[in-house]
Amino acid sequence: MNGSIAKAYLKNYIISTDTLYLDFFKDKVKEAYELGAIPGELTESFCEMGRVGKRFRGALMVLAFELFRNDKDSSDIIPTSLLMELLHAGLLIQDDIMDNDPIRRGFQTLHTKFEQRGRELEVKASPKLFGTSVAMCIADAGFYWSWEVLMKSSFSAESKVAAANILNHYLVRLIHGQALDVAITGAKDLSEKDILNVIWTKSGEYTTLLPMLLGASLAGITDENKLAVITEYAKCLGWAFQIQDDILGMFGEQEEMGKPVGSDLREGKNTLLILHLSKRATPEQLTFMKEKLGNPDITQTDVEAMKQILKDSGAYEYVLNLGWSYVEQGKTLIPKLTTDARLQELLESFLVLMMERTK
Amino acid sequence: MNGSIAKAYLKNYIISTDTLYLDFFKDKVKEAYELGAIPGELTESFCEMGRVGKRFRGALMVLAFELFRNDKDSSDIIPTSLLMELLHAGLLIQDDIMDNDPIRRGFQTLHTKFEQRGRELEVKASPKLFGTSVAMCIADAGFYWSWEVLMKSSFSAESKVAAANILNHYLVRLIHGQALDVAITGAKDLSEKDILNVIWTKSGEYTTLLPMLLGASLAGITDENKLAVITEYAKCLGWAFQIQDDILGMFGEQEEMGKPVGSDLREGKNTLLILHLSKRATPEQLTFMKEKLGNPDITQTDVEAMKQILKDSGAYEYVLNLGWSYVEQGKTLIPKLTTDARLQELLESFLVLMMERTK
Repeated sequence: MNGSIAKAYLKNYIISTDTLYLDFFKDKVKEAYELGAIPGELTESFCEMGRVGKRFRGALMVLAFELFRNDKDSSDIIPTSLLMELLHAGLLIQDDIMDNDPIRRGFQTLHTKFEQRGRELEVKASPKLFGTSVAMCIADAGFYWSWEVLMKSSFSAESKVAAANILNHYLVRLIHGQALDVAITGAKDLSEKDILNVIWTKSGEYTTLLPMLLGASLAGITDENKLAVITEYAKCLGWAFQIQDDILGMFGEQEEMGKPVGSDLREGKNTLLILHLSKRATPEQLTFMKEKLGNPDITQTDVEAMKQILKDSGAYEYVLNLGWSYVEQGKTLIPKLTTDARLQELLESFLVLMMERTK
Repeated sequence: MNGSIAKAYLKNYIISTDTLYLDFFKDKVKEAYELGAIPGELTESFCEMGRVGKRFRGALMVLAFELFRNDKDSSDIIPTSLLMELLHAGLLIQDDIMDNDPIRRGFQTLHTKFEQRGRELEVKASPKLFGTSVAMCIADAGFYWSWEVLMKSSFSAESKVAAANILNHYLVRLIHGQALDVAITGAKDLSEKDILNVIWTKSGEYTTLLPMLLGASLAGITDENKLAVITEYAKCLGWAFQIQDDILGMFGEQEEMGKPVGSDLREGKNTLLILHLSKRATPEQLTFMKEKLGNPDITQTDVEAMKQILKDSGAYEYVLNLGWSYVEQGKTLIPKLTTDARLQELLESFLVLMMERTK
């Protein structure tokens, strides 16, 4: 089994949601321009950036719905699942402000783009603050739109409220995780628990667990045992995703990633690679790591040297194996979730895809 | 009729919601500290700042509910109305980042407070970016909490969804208005329409119209005519509020306001006072205004001189009268809303309070 079935599922999801996505924004762009040029431009930029994602989160919401839908039609879940993509795009805009990143998904980040726009418009505020401020505004709109999609969906009011309560719970955890991430970036003497906690709450949890619980909830899941199993499965999927994210951040290809390789290193992020390197590095390797981690002036040569150290120390192999162990652990849960052969294959293929993906 | 009945209503609302507010945050603070020290501190700071507001928006939500509740118990609306206060606190945190304001409600603004905290913690990011980032996070939490309050309230699922759709609609408009405000601050040759548009969408609308529509919706209003009248009433109330806001921003007392008087001038905000001054100022007054508007170095003497110019030119009196004209216009709508003498008095007193208030 490889990731190709999941890849095809994602491709199909992207095709079936793209028109819905663009239709949604047609009205939003129009309404925004009616209020003013800047709201209009911001909405267009959001739409453009939000469109080119992997749409992995939305697809997982649909997949979880399919697992538990019984005889329900799945035509309602597809438009509704776009809420995950709107939410994700809003969060990325905020994340880019906080990390001061210039590039996202191959585009200029929104705060950078509108910093330039502010310079053109000769705004009163500093162009930097202007870019940050208007990017903050449109990120908020992303959250409100994701709510709108859920609330205007064709599910029953009870289902919407149940899903909304799940959404709120995980969004508050996510945003605390995000604050924690900013706080511990570059901090010394962090425990493994702190680091894992941040990675999970700020990213892994909302990437897999949140959409799967939303999909399951909208499908009307009531079986507590199955809910526990889908939670475990989503955790395995989320950790595999997160591990590969850390790996791609150092070992990926810039063109595929749509952002500079090595930026985690430059920003001093506490990735799993860095955590395990610090456990097994020689004193010389450790000195090099501490010198480069969070150093904004590191060169491509430094990144290459760091990659070598990660490999030589065994940290890379350890983390890679850890990722695959989550894939294996996840596989054991599948028979408890469904007896449908197609869905079983899909669930397995998604696990593998997490570690196979190159972007 | 003066504002005292409304003032007493607000005081009573504050008393009856304060324990609810603190209880809500008891759990939130605990959960946040479980994730980490910074999320915990942020939640405490949010709670502290959010607690000392006028709670005007929450009270208006209750008032509108009372107008249309028929025989419904109003015990559900009081805890639910806190959503407006949570939302408002989140928006203030964002607004303070965008305006780079140091003081709010007598407290250090959150991004300023955590900039200092970042310095103490020797965070890797610049303390300024750290403060901004974690303040952004907790502002988001404020939005999610406001959703939580609505979704976990004891209203029917249908009522929650209907209220949620109103909330979304106005929040998107608000955030576009906020972006527009940042964009036009200090811009030249603005039309009166642009300025009024910004003031209304970014502030007036969500201060009065949003909470009143939420309260009316949760009360189950169905009468389209009454909905149109409450909308008109809320507009009068909102414009009176906004006009007094602009007046207090220049003529208020710093201790009452909890923020520096003259900051609108320093930031170059397009207030109604400035708009009407630009229409009736002498060439000398206009030169002075242009020199000082948006000048970060203006002194207290400049602020005093500006106040004199606003009075001499007639702009102050014009805007003041405009505010009172909204009060009068609003009064004419009251008999169409209710025949209950107590509620009629309250509605009138609220209009007057908007212009009488000193903070």
